[in-house]
Amino acid sequence: MAGPAPTPILKDELDIVIPTIRNLDFLEMWRPFFEAYHLIIVQDGDPSKIISVPKGFDYELYNRNDINRILGPKASCISFKDSACRCFGYMVSKKKYVFTIDDDCFVAKDPSGKDINALEQHIKNLLSPSTPFFFNTLYDPYRDGADFVRGYPFSLRHGTPTAVSHGLWMNIPDYDAPTQLVKPLERNTRYVDAVLTIPKGTLFPMCGMNLAFDRELIGPAMYFGLMGDGQPIGRYDDMWAGWCIKVICDHLGLGVKTGLPYIWHSKASNPFVNLKKEYKGIFWQEEIIPFFQSATLPKECTSVQQCYIELSKQVKESLGKVDPYFQKLADAMVTWIEAWDELNPTASNAESNAPNGAAKSAK
Amino acid sequence: MAGPAPTPILKDELDIVIPTIRNLDFLEMWRPFFEAYHLIIVQDGDPSKIISVPKGFDYELYNRNDINRILGPKASCISFKDSACRCFGYMVSKKKYVFTIDDDCFVAKDPSGKDINALEQHIKNLLSPSTPFFFNTLYDPYRDGADFVRGYPFSLRHGTPTAVSHGLWMNIPDYDAPTQLVKPLERNTRYVDAVLTIPKGTLFPMCGMNLAFDRELIGPAMYFGLMGDGQPIGRYDDMWAGWCIKVICDHLGLGVKTGLPYIWHSKASNPFVNLKKEYKGIFWQEEIIPFFQSATLPKECTSVQQCYIELSKQVKESLGKVDPYFQKLADAMVTWIEAWDELNPTASNAESNAPNGAAKSAK
Repeated sequence: MAGPAPTPILKDELDIVIPTIRNLDFLEMWRPFFEAYHLIIVQDGDPSKIISVPKGFDYELYNRNDINRILGPKASCISFKDSACRCFGYMVSKKKYVFTIDDDCFVAKDPSGKDINALEQHIKNLLSPSTPFFFNTLYDPYRDGADFVRGYPFSLRHGTPTAVSHGLWMNIPDYDAPTQLVKPLERNTRYVDAVLTIPKGTLFPMCGMNLAFDRELIGPAMYFGLMGDGQPIGRYDDMWAGWCIKVICDHLGLGVKTGLPYIWHSKASNPFVNLKKEYKGIFWQEEIIPFFQSATLPKECTSVQQCYIELSKQVKESLGKVDPYFQKLADAMVTWIEAWDELNPTASNAESNAPNGAAKSAK
Repeated sequence: MAGPAPTPILKDELDIVIPTIRNLDFLEMWRPFFEAYHLIIVQDGDPSKIISVPKGFDYELYNRNDINRILGPKASCISFKDSACRCFGYMVSKKKYVFTIDDDCFVAKDPSGKDINALEQHIKNLLSPSTPFFFNTLYDPYRDGADFVRGYPFSLRHGTPTAVSHGLWMNIPDYDAPTQLVKPLERNTRYVDAVLTIPKGTLFPMCGMNLAFDRELIGPAMYFGLMGDGQPIGRYDDMWAGWCIKVICDHLGLGVKTGLPYIWHSKASNPFVNLKKEYKGIFWQEEIIPFFQSATLPKECTSVQQCYIELSKQVKESLGKVDPYFQKLADAMVTWIEAWDELNPTASNAESNAPNGAAKSAK
């Protein structure tokens, strides 16, 4: 519906968050698209290892020692030896928008052979509204050359603010270990030229490989959980965040888009290792998903923090029965919000019921 | 997920239903794809007019006199001077599947320049399951080269039977009159290579231009309402059917897909005429859609007929207050089911609570 105005690049309003354990050579390919932005690199694993970053990029880098120093005891909510650690970067960012990408993701090409500027498409997605209350059969009605089709209620055509933009992957699709094992050679070659809003009330598997969001709208719910070292599960960090953010976006009237942009996912992770990380998640998700599908938040929860704390209580009560892990995770959700509010003090934090320091001392 | 088995053509199991007021020259272009099938032509308007059909097609043609003769007083439920009359064709078909197409729709080309066999794609859509309970970010997981992504619950991967396949349009998009007036030159040139399931609980604007469905699964709900001659509204026939079928599919656990195939929609209808037909619908849909969004059917409704009769009661009660038209429409919904069951007697009809002749006399 919107005219073809040039896309703002939001240079001073967006951080790129990259979790990694290796030298960031992959940035060379992204140089034309990323060099204008600030990078937040979250180094996982051995903090004594030196990670090299190609020259010319503006970045800050946090290793485990930094995380422990900055968060103190609350660092327990940040995963170790799992890319879930990336959410620390969301917390220390001071920008309105975050784009996060894995270090094995490269620039994809569109069907005409042109390099895809993934970040520009994410910005387009985030800056145009979402349509969660009714499905538009011609996909995103705000794209150039598209609109709302006959029968779309006019009262819903202003849309809702978009909180999350979920991008996809050419080449190696984001499959679970069993599917990787069964279809080792499957590659995604289908370029689907669409962006669409995930309807209200519908959950989706959110992948953290190529993801952007509005920190102000949904940041405090973008917690990637307890995964990896010392935890019974891995590779469910982004899924956990996806279930939580969707329930909260639905409650707060915010939109989640999926589709474009594509990145080129270069190599499949080891399916045997993945199976070990995933198998409890594969089992548990059969109970987790119905839990999130039926989760409702009370009207009184009007901030993301309030919603998230309420959700943590429901997680403890309902999923705590599935496994004690979820009691620990529910506690970590609370710690995460406390840490978020400490690093991101705002007037509304202090006034809200979120259990941050300020609110506690005011009681 | 399914392997690349050849698509069955369902020659003896599918009818093509075409509403028209003119000679069917457009069939020439469809000859390679349609000639194997039986056509049901529903002639609208003046029954004395002779409609010519290109040689070689196997067809039956019904004009208004035929409809009146076959249905008697129940013919009142079939619209006149509106393409809503096409649903008479659904009723007289004896096949498991129906494909309906407008006579200003031609063969579209895919991005490689190849003619699109729309019917073949509809058959693929109908013969593979739907996934209404959880969103798959790589779209239809049953297409060749695709699958369920990481985080998709395994218990949901068998999917549900697909009842409806909704195809799209290149060139002239299906816009309402106000959008046509505002954007007279907009053309749809974006080929989106995707099929997706409309999630449970989400309504969509169903267009009747390029539509296929499983008569056995959902036929009795594919009623296109009272439109055109003597009615206060037009161009909402397919929308009405779309709202009804979606609520019933959701209740019965059936799937609705949208996306491929595309047809080439050759010319826009007159926006001034359309505005006259639509304006009450544009106003009313603001109340109709919330009604359907919150409509629930009781567990006891296990057949499409039972669901539809129950829905007609709710329409009368809730929408009857919006305008007396909806009381008339609710009555027509009942008449439609009576007529359907008369023309389609089955053991289950006779046993069900649907108010058909057999059930009545058995009481």
